[in-house]
Amino acid sequence: MSDWTTYSKEELLELKAETQKRYDEYKAKGLKLDLSRGKPGSDVLDLSNGLLGALDTYKSENGTDIRNYGVPTGLPEAKKLFSDLLGIPAANLIVGGNSSLTHMYNVFAFLHLFGPKGFAPWSKQKVKILCPCPGYDRHFTLTDDFGAEMVVVPLKEDGPDMDLVEKLAAEDESVKGIWIIPLYSNPTGGIISSEKAKRLASMKTAAKDFRIFWDNAYGVHHIWEKNTAPDILKLTAEAGNADRAYYFFSTSKINFPGGGIGLVAASEENVAELAAHYAKATIGFDKIIQLKTVKFFGNADGIVAHMERIAELLRPRFDHVLGTLHKEFSGTGLLTWTPPKGGYFVSVDTLPGCAKAVVALAKDAGVVLTGAGATYPHKADPNDSNIRIAPTYPDLDELEETMELLVLCIKLVSIDKLLEV
Amino acid sequence: MSDWTTYSKEELLELKAETQKRYDEYKAKGLKLDLSRGKPGSDVLDLSNGLLGALDTYKSENGTDIRNYGVPTGLPEAKKLFSDLLGIPAANLIVGGNSSLTHMYNVFAFLHLFGPKGFAPWSKQKVKILCPCPGYDRHFTLTDDFGAEMVVVPLKEDGPDMDLVEKLAAEDESVKGIWIIPLYSNPTGGIISSEKAKRLASMKTAAKDFRIFWDNAYGVHHIWEKNTAPDILKLTAEAGNADRAYYFFSTSKINFPGGGIGLVAASEENVAELAAHYAKATIGFDKIIQLKTVKFFGNADGIVAHMERIAELLRPRFDHVLGTLHKEFSGTGLLTWTPPKGGYFVSVDTLPGCAKAVVALAKDAGVVLTGAGATYPHKADPNDSNIRIAPTYPDLDELEETMELLVLCIKLVSIDKLLEV
Repeated sequence: MSDWTTYSKEELLELKAETQKRYDEYKAKGLKLDLSRGKPGSDVLDLSNGLLGALDTYKSENGTDIRNYGVPTGLPEAKKLFSDLLGIPAANLIVGGNSSLTHMYNVFAFLHLFGPKGFAPWSKQKVKILCPCPGYDRHFTLTDDFGAEMVVVPLKEDGPDMDLVEKLAAEDESVKGIWIIPLYSNPTGGIISSEKAKRLASMKTAAKDFRIFWDNAYGVHHIWEKNTAPDILKLTAEAGNADRAYYFFSTSKINFPGGGIGLVAASEENVAELAAHYAKATIGFDKIIQLKTVKFFGNADGIVAHMERIAELLRPRFDHVLGTLHKEFSGTGLLTWTPPKGGYFVSVDTLPGCAKAVVALAKDAGVVLTGAGATYPHKADPNDSNIRIAPTYPDLDELEETMELLVLCIKLVSIDKLLEV
Repeated sequence: MSDWTTYSKEELLELKAETQKRYDEYKAKGLKLDLSRGKPGSDVLDLSNGLLGALDTYKSENGTDIRNYGVPTGLPEAKKLFSDLLGIPAANLIVGGNSSLTHMYNVFAFLHLFGPKGFAPWSKQKVKILCPCPGYDRHFTLTDDFGAEMVVVPLKEDGPDMDLVEKLAAEDESVKGIWIIPLYSNPTGGIISSEKAKRLASMKTAAKDFRIFWDNAYGVHHIWEKNTAPDILKLTAEAGNADRAYYFFSTSKINFPGGGIGLVAASEENVAELAAHYAKATIGFDKIIQLKTVKFFGNADGIVAHMERIAELLRPRFDHVLGTLHKEFSGTGLLTWTPPKGGYFVSVDTLPGCAKAVVALAKDAGVVLTGAGATYPHKADPNDSNIRIAPTYPDLDELEETMELLVLCIKLVSIDKLLEV
């Protein structure tokens, strides 16, 4: 395709008229589609409907009556399931609750209220958290709830700009932590390299209580090929910084976001500290869903096989999005993107200053996209160019319709931008 | 029965020899019984086994797919169920999670991290919390986790010593709150009077952000007769202190402690504030258990009927404990107690300085009681006399055996105490 940025004003106006006409046709349809959130579609949820079925026992393998109080860090069979799946020793796991985001929030709360063991509470200090961007909006709103300053660092294909991360962490003791989505990052779908993970684990930090918030949300969420996140708990331990990393995972995008299992993993010392606070806040997480999950999947291989079935449902959606982007924008100079390696999203960058206008135009035609800027702290994308496409929720027909419209919106806004020059 | 405190040394020694012989016989049996925690027994849990059954729909009445993300403050039908049961408008409820204790912890965390709206964070101030005693050990360990000072105030049959509470709250602006279990208090089984609730709701407090932590844990847990807790949200609103009370409730002792539903209620402003923080910590509580609970009970009357069935199972246990205490200790001068009006516990007071020894002696014979002192902050019962009996978990046979042993332990330790004089 030819490079639109080289077009004359006349050519652009012609393209605009044609594109506007097609956009208006779409708008007239009164669509109501949502491409905004990383929610699984009904077909994916249906794969787990067995979890809605009856449980034929209420005894854990250790004899515990799962209906009653107790077992605050998770049923042994649930710990084994995730230990096998993630390669993390059971002693390093706290399994429970339906949300890894809640574990993240709680870890932040404990750090701010009490400090990591042996250190001052973060609430009594200036706290800066490094935020590789584009990133996950809920990490940022969570961080912001605690009043921590969010420092944007560029996210590359293989992880954050580590030269900058090392510099910031080494020079400023108020830099207390960093968010990392190691595998199939939200929204770029990239994978952190082993080398960058090792640098994170071993780098010198001015803050003695620097922490890595390692959100392995897409740890087994392959689409085309299987990849594995670096083992951050092992890397930090080997570097003599065993307490540096908190590892988060959940089954929200494996079975049911509305009733799955979250977990947090860390060094045994960190787990003991977390467990001690959790023991003041609960007499035990819901154990019924834990036993149900174990019975439903059987073992870690059962989860792996389940994720392959999910991949079969997601692959055509991702292929369609990527195919459309390639067909419509390759060589146009209007849009850049790197195909994700897996996960839940496709991240695209428009010409500078176009993202908000694209999202607004799509909304006018009934298609909700993730808010422009959401992938940056305070929704402030300095280039106003990043848009996160979440193709998992709509079915393929809806997705096709939505993508056609999105293409028109990007073209229209881009033409206007080019006409400005 | 005659008053043992008037016995001669010889009489006491004779009683001691006889009691010791019977204690040794029990000890030889190698019992392993637990009267320590307020856990429901298997027969009570069995009444809710329907919750382990299959769910034949995954749609909420508002069309929400309960398997997916969303609905952060609870399903509308779950809110309606508890609204009807507790007489609290749905707009004042956040329903979700499996533990009211977790809501209490989170409210404390939010108050300490962020302060109530318009006030400074509690973590930046000296905080004292009034603790009517004897009280619930987990309230105290939770409070202590935040480093707040716990100020003991005597708990009377109709609620805390309000003259003292009013004085402390009026004089000291570091007095920020009070724990109240309004109905069938843990461990005394008393009920706060409407008059005392009204005084709590309307009293002058030096701290403008004074809070009542109203843990209605036993709100529908009748045994012999139905009683109702005063409506603290209404009373505080009427007194112009709408934001003063946080109300907690759960189904842990209605259906399953290992998989029930917790809730927090408050003024609409407080709910908005809590919900805003919760929205940063979760994309929605487990909705599957919420819909299951609604389907299982049908409506509030269904819960009331269910609690009557539980009462039928618990009544013989409580009758046995109270009958035994009456038969063995009435008029002896060794033990005082007030029969609970409902709930989950029987609270007794030994002669001063005996409780720890009684608990230790019972443990030697294989019977675990709630640790002596647990009903006071830092486990420090100034009289070393309060013991909480939790008769809900063992079956009647076990309970009979346990009570016989407990009687012997109380007698033995009391005789030794009388011989000291």
